[in-house]
Amino acid sequence: MANSPSGDSATDRLVRVLETFTPTRTVQSTAEIGRRARLPSSSAHRIVSELVETGLLERDESRRVRIGMRLWELATRSSGALRLRQAAMPYMERVQARVREHTQLAVLEQDEALFLERLSSPASGSNVTRVAGRLPLHASSSGLVLLAFADREYQDRILAAPLAPLTRATLSDPAAVRRKLGEVRSLGHAIAPGYIEDVSTGIAVPIRDETSTVVAALSVVLPREAEAEFALVELHRAARDIEKALGFRR
Amino acid sequence: MANSPSGDSATDRLVRVLETFTPTRTVQSTAEIGRRARLPSSSAHRIVSELVETGLLERDESRRVRIGMRLWELATRSSGALRLRQAAMPYMERVQARVREHTQLAVLEQDEALFLERLSSPASGSNVTRVAGRLPLHASSSGLVLLAFADREYQDRILAAPLAPLTRATLSDPAAVRRKLGEVRSLGHAIAPGYIEDVSTGIAVPIRDETSTVVAALSVVLPREAEAEFALVELHRAARDIEKALGFRR
Repeated sequence: MANSPSGDSATDRLVRVLETFTPTRTVQSTAEIGRRARLPSSSAHRIVSELVETGLLERDESRRVRIGMRLWELATRSSGALRLRQAAMPYMERVQARVREHTQLAVLEQDEALFLERLSSPASGSNVTRVAGRLPLHASSSGLVLLAFADREYQDRILAAPLAPLTRATLSDPAAVRRKLGEVRSLGHAIAPGYIEDVSTGIAVPIRDETSTVVAALSVVLPREAEAEFALVELHRAARDIEKALGFRR
Repeated sequence: MANSPSGDSATDRLVRVLETFTPTRTVQSTAEIGRRARLPSSSAHRIVSELVETGLLERDESRRVRIGMRLWELATRSSGALRLRQAAMPYMERVQARVREHTQLAVLEQDEALFLERLSSPASGSNVTRVAGRLPLHASSSGLVLLAFADREYQDRILAAPLAPLTRATLSDPAAVRRKLGEVRSLGHAIAPGYIEDVSTGIAVPIRDETSTVVAALSVVLPREAEAEFALVELHRAARDIEKALGFRR
């Protein structure tokens, strides 16, 4: 694809357009998209029209633009995310049915925990997680599991960047996070009391592939004062069953 | 974006690349992608590299290419599919728990029923549906619901195209499908005994928005000989609850 005078590729510009859509900004005008994607108005109009033409974006009656069903379909039908999620679903439902709190599945993506699935019941407590949402590695129980079992070099890079506190309980000192990661490796799970929200505690366990590499984290979000033991037992059991379902374990 | 000598836009070529990935072809070499997307080798290499650079595609150790988690994230986090699915999930789980068979949510997309979600239990019977998979409108119970409540012009267009039979029970004569659509409108649900697979019956009901437009179909797949009544009651109840959850009904 041809590069623009500024040297960015057509793919870059297209990704910048898609990135202007967020969980809280699902509908935009073409002018808004152009401004947020830092594109000249004529380029924005052309790219949006092409994306609408192919169904990756959709226009409503008032010509405002949203992510198209076709993009979701293309992204979902052959993705690794789907395979992992489909294998995990029956066991996530079991955890959700027994623990009766939010049950989540996350992977490491671009230095954050990306949530592939979240099951909740109307009775579940507070939880900031969304499907396709992200949380920082040092603050979420899922992130701590994914980081604890990553290689040392990767951990060093994450711990060298600023570790923003989300609550007064969030570990934001690199040495404290490093100690926590050692604890997660020894225990085989992460407990994050109040790190994301004061009122809740995240509990996560690793899901490992056939080489014992950690590929995902399975977690629940409990009210802060709740006992963790029962949830931990259910999480470990579900993680084992998911590994079996994926053929990672006999 | 610049057009190639053949007049297709950069967006077209990018969509052609993404379309080479299917549920059964999740990993490909760049040469295979180029051939299937009808792109010259140099273009294929450049586009794949750009897509890998932005994370929309990912390369494994042997340089084979798959759909990236980043594309899934961008497509999912702000899509209408996600909003509908998230609203429907608790009620789909209720249907699944009570009927104990595959429970599915579909929308009309490019003249087929596109499945946004599918819940199953290990005990559920045969079912060809996949998440982000599609079925023909005239053959699936979901498709018949979506088609029955579409406008007359659209129905005419679908019925004018060849209606491929999938089993001996599939309605493939336009007049027979048209009678079936009338029946679906009168009854408010579609029953498709053996239309997709000999051994199973699909049952679907519509989900309507605030203007009573049908926006999705909720369905279960039962063994061919099973009673439909109980499933129908649960489906109608779930559809009403989903409409309420989406603010479409008070």
